Amino acid sequence: MNGSLTIGALGLAAAALTSLSYLPQARKALPRGATKDLSLKTLGALLVGLCLWAVYGILRSDVVIVIANSVGAVLVAIVLVCKLRDLLYCRR
Amino acid sequence: MNGSLTIGALGLAAAALTSLSYLPQARKALPRGATKDLSLKTLGALLVGLCLWAVYGILRSDVVIVIANSVGAVLVAIVLVCKLRDLLYCRR
Repeated sequence: MNGSLTIGALGLAAAALTSLSYLPQARKALPRGATKDLSLKTLGALLVGLCLWAVYGILRSDVVIVIANSVGAVLVAIVLVCKLRDLLYCRR
Repeated sequence: MNGSLTIGALGLAAAALTSLSYLPQARKALPRGATKDLSLKTLGALLVGLCLWAVYGILRSDVVIVIANSVGAVLVAIVLVCKLRDLLYCRR
């Protein structure tokens, strides 16, 4: 396997391990009220950071970075929506 | 500011937002017994992923990726050490 393919495979392995680490948190956030321990600010900062990484990957023409951070951004967005739901639901 | 400097600045902003999102979790993990809700497997996978990203950054000669993921790896390693401490402490 030539050099760039190996590097790409390494990047995809890193992407799978880090992006999918948001999966358990996304699953835990689904039930109503389950996000009370999570900080809206931290989630918002993380989502903006992941989106900036995806733009960074586009500007560097690095598809591995784009894929990894887009997957991560989707999972964190799910947690953020659940957090906003819980905040709105508590105000009623 | 020329193109590559702008891209580098964007990457560092993304790095700050995503790597530092591990900071609250590292702080929360410090008191004894505070990591009972955290999964050793997820932390381990995340740490390996961040280290692979740092190697990926080295192979791509992308210092932004190396810095971002090294900082993230150090913070996650702190949480992992706290998790191992709590597991060992519970067995006594």
